[in-house]
Amino acid sequence: MVGVDFGTLSGRAVVVRVADGAELGSAVHEYAHGVIERALPGSEVRLGPDWALQSPQDWIDVLRLAVPQAVAAAGIAPEEVIGIGTDFTACTVLPATADGTPLCFETPSRPHAWPKLWKHHAAQPHADRINELAARRGETWLPRYGGKISSEWEFAKALQVLEEDPEVYARAERWIEAADWIVWQLAGVESRNICTAGYKGIFQDGTYPSADFLAELNPGFADFTSKLATGRVGERVAAGVRLAALGASAGTLSARAAEWTGLPEGIAVAVGNVDAHVTAAAADAVRPGQMVAIMGTSTCHIMPSDRLAEVPGMCGVVQDGIVPGLWGYEAGQSAVGDIFAWFVDSFVPAAYTERAAEQGLSVHAYLTSLAEKQAVGEHGLVALDWFGGNRSVLVDHNLSGVIIGQTLATRPEDVYRTLIESTAYGARMIVETFEKSGVPVEEFVVAGGLLKNPFLMQVYADVLRRPLSVIGSDQGPALGSAIHAAVAAGAYTDIEAAAATMGKRTEAAYVPDAARADAYDRLYGEYRNLHDHFGDGKALHKLRAIRNEASA
Amino acid sequence: MVGVDFGTLSGRAVVVRVADGAELGSAVHEYAHGVIERALPGSEVRLGPDWALQSPQDWIDVLRLAVPQAVAAAGIAPEEVIGIGTDFTACTVLPATADGTPLCFETPSRPHAWPKLWKHHAAQPHADRINELAARRGETWLPRYGGKISSEWEFAKALQVLEEDPEVYARAERWIEAADWIVWQLAGVESRNICTAGYKGIFQDGTYPSADFLAELNPGFADFTSKLATGRVGERVAAGVRLAALGASAGTLSARAAEWTGLPEGIAVAVGNVDAHVTAAAADAVRPGQMVAIMGTSTCHIMPSDRLAEVPGMCGVVQDGIVPGLWGYEAGQSAVGDIFAWFVDSFVPAAYTERAAEQGLSVHAYLTSLAEKQAVGEHGLVALDWFGGNRSVLVDHNLSGVIIGQTLATRPEDVYRTLIESTAYGARMIVETFEKSGVPVEEFVVAGGLLKNPFLMQVYADVLRRPLSVIGSDQGPALGSAIHAAVAAGAYTDIEAAAATMGKRTEAAYVPDAARADAYDRLYGEYRNLHDHFGDGKALHKLRAIRNEASA
Repeated sequence: MVGVDFGTLSGRAVVVRVADGAELGSAVHEYAHGVIERALPGSEVRLGPDWALQSPQDWIDVLRLAVPQAVAAAGIAPEEVIGIGTDFTACTVLPATADGTPLCFETPSRPHAWPKLWKHHAAQPHADRINELAARRGETWLPRYGGKISSEWEFAKALQVLEEDPEVYARAERWIEAADWIVWQLAGVESRNICTAGYKGIFQDGTYPSADFLAELNPGFADFTSKLATGRVGERVAAGVRLAALGASAGTLSARAAEWTGLPEGIAVAVGNVDAHVTAAAADAVRPGQMVAIMGTSTCHIMPSDRLAEVPGMCGVVQDGIVPGLWGYEAGQSAVGDIFAWFVDSFVPAAYTERAAEQGLSVHAYLTSLAEKQAVGEHGLVALDWFGGNRSVLVDHNLSGVIIGQTLATRPEDVYRTLIESTAYGARMIVETFEKSGVPVEEFVVAGGLLKNPFLMQVYADVLRRPLSVIGSDQGPALGSAIHAAVAAGAYTDIEAAAATMGKRTEAAYVPDAARADAYDRLYGEYRNLHDHFGDGKALHKLRAIRNEASA
Repeated sequence: MVGVDFGTLSGRAVVVRVADGAELGSAVHEYAHGVIERALPGSEVRLGPDWALQSPQDWIDVLRLAVPQAVAAAGIAPEEVIGIGTDFTACTVLPATADGTPLCFETPSRPHAWPKLWKHHAAQPHADRINELAARRGETWLPRYGGKISSEWEFAKALQVLEEDPEVYARAERWIEAADWIVWQLAGVESRNICTAGYKGIFQDGTYPSADFLAELNPGFADFTSKLATGRVGERVAAGVRLAALGASAGTLSARAAEWTGLPEGIAVAVGNVDAHVTAAAADAVRPGQMVAIMGTSTCHIMPSDRLAEVPGMCGVVQDGIVPGLWGYEAGQSAVGDIFAWFVDSFVPAAYTERAAEQGLSVHAYLTSLAEKQAVGEHGLVALDWFGGNRSVLVDHNLSGVIIGQTLATRPEDVYRTLIESTAYGARMIVETFEKSGVPVEEFVVAGGLLKNPFLMQVYADVLRRPLSVIGSDQGPALGSAIHAAVAAGAYTDIEAAAATMGKRTEAAYVPDAARADAYDRLYGEYRNLHDHFGDGKALHKLRAIRNEASA
């Protein structure tokens, strides 16, 4: 089984044994174009601020290069592979023709013809208008997204294309998630997965936002959903629109894709999926109340549940959005590892970096070694983890960070520890918000790169006052994609069964210490007070506005 | 004329020409013992946290070494010197016998026998009790100190001696400011200056706190004021107690002191004074409404006024406390240059220190060169300058720093600029509090080490929305002492006249820019909001308490 994870800077292929989930071999391909932020490739055309594009050729190259390398590394014959599954960043979305040709292959000098990467944030004004109008009209889908849709999503990005390059908009017969586009390339047939349609495409209760609503945004936008063509497959079909269920087969590997990948033509191709959501399967955490936190530069929280509720500030809730038959919840923290990296890059003095080097440690590891010696609260600090805005529960990207309690005795390790703790408080705020809204969180499961810091994990266990489970793979998304592929290929009856055998999770890998948890309760109380005080944005929005005016 | 400034780490002697204030030569002596914080000299006796002592021998050595060197550097004959004046840190205070012998010369192994430096903060519990009792009893002197006396002052430190080492307390026939003790050593006769008596010794309306009040603190403390023996001299005498007026002669140079200094026996010795207060004369800023800000590691604000008012959070108001005939006000900011030094030492990465070195700049100068390119508000940050507590207007050393508005794009120069601005906002808060209380501030005059940063000065002018005058000497305290000596020697009729000729001030050296001042008004509004929100100490005291418990 092959799983392929398409990330922000590279794609990774992993070969996984169907019988037990053993990871037999893997390979990574770094995108030649990386993230396109300043100018179009091979061109003088400059991009605006907050733009972020990608090249579809890079994605194809992952299939051409990383997949055969992973198979070779696994030491198996390509013929042993019975299916392929993929996951993608989202919402990464592109305009294409009816046969799936990306418009940027036709008109490479038009910025709007290129795929917009998830972190393209230039459509914020369009998202603002969508939110404002939806709130005014009382659109029933709005609370499914915690009250706000993101500038990163399909409708905001498409509206930007319509209004800034109507020709490209008109030429786009399809507006398609990269998650679905790559599956189209593999299987040769178009499909739309239920996950991105729900979380990024505002597909709720069997329908997209109405033509009436879209026309009020812009008359030219009225028939936008015709570009979100329905898929051919999809046993689980919501009323009105046919979408492809997760774990289903999108078709079989085409001759062209077999040539790219070196895999046998005709093997199963799984329906597309999102990197975070597919990780739940890799952690064997697809039952109600199992919240999977994928902790890296940012954190994404994914949780199936058997009940529907409107959780304030969640990113979204989608029926069948993680596994068929359950509601799938998503929440997030805009910046987590990014915060620690920022601090280490910009605010740690030479004496520390030198001592870290002497001890053969990374600066992160050295700061951690100093910070972990402290008693809870010894640094006297509390921070709000909003250095990249707040995704949940306030859904406000114009918030910013706050640190209080510094004295002339405050040292880098004090701030570093405080920043780690602040992200743990942010996670607790999210968990509590779910539970208060009637959606129980039974288990907190951690995946992602920050797993490598045991001190950080222990802080999370102490702050959350609950045991942490951890994923048993550091290739979670690719493993999850392989699990979905195993279901698509018919090796398992459903995702739950495949995850139970192929997924990897250690329960209670970290358990809270009662005394430290008590001490953190007091600090968390102060965090909540700051959260309430600054959460209204009165001060922080004013500073942001002053900053924007001054920088203009 | 010789002026000698006794600082925290060294003493400086300056030879000044009476006719015009020209500084002819100077010399510095670093104290051999520096600040005694961990153990007594040549002993195993450990000191507690927050202790800070000095050695009287170091002070004598300044007279023995720096004074002759300064005279030699000036290229004049010692016989040309007609007077000597001194200023000291305060409240730096010591127990002595009736003949002026420091108790630490007799029992050097007893910590409480040593002089307590101004920044000895271990008497905070004693200060708290004094404040609490004074408030409960409605003592009329309390509002003269903004509602709180400091743990640094004479009564708190003496109460600590009584309760922790009653034998030393009993043996102390005198409890005397170093400012007066050094004059006693020079002139051979004891005097008590009106400045330290008022600001540090709670001398108000002609009397010290009552025996009744002191007995309620501790029965053994009832007759404490008998150790504050009155001086022999002092034309300006408040009812009941004779104190020595500023600018008066405390006597003439003794044979022993003449031998130490190489100066002629019998020349005038000026009454003792405090470093900050004497600087007003050096800046020729001794008229009502001239606020002198001595900006260094911390900032001290000194202002004569013709009216008495109870200004919230001022350090003190003392009749004749700066110049005879006027009320003398003092306010302060606990940490200013200390904040910038802390940031540069602990939070500036190697890339910056290396680039600074390449450009031949100090890190401060390099950060300033980056920060000064920004438009006001461009960094999006505001900070509360309470990293060393708040001396005015909240008088709360358990407050701590706050920074809001950071993003992942925030750089060291952004924070550096914000910290500079925060201290300017703190200064504006003090100026506004004076004016709101009915004490007009006519002119803002800057002295001290931070004058060397023109960008910082311009920020202050813009934030304060007023022109800044600057002192014309970088040896302000020593020059001021020489001016006082000139008055004591009879060369001028009073301090005003001497300061007008010998003092040095440039008016409107920095003038505000209207556009920047308007921009700063908005940011200052946010500073005020933070000040009001965190000023109650609810959050910051809690964090301090948690810190203290965790560190215990």
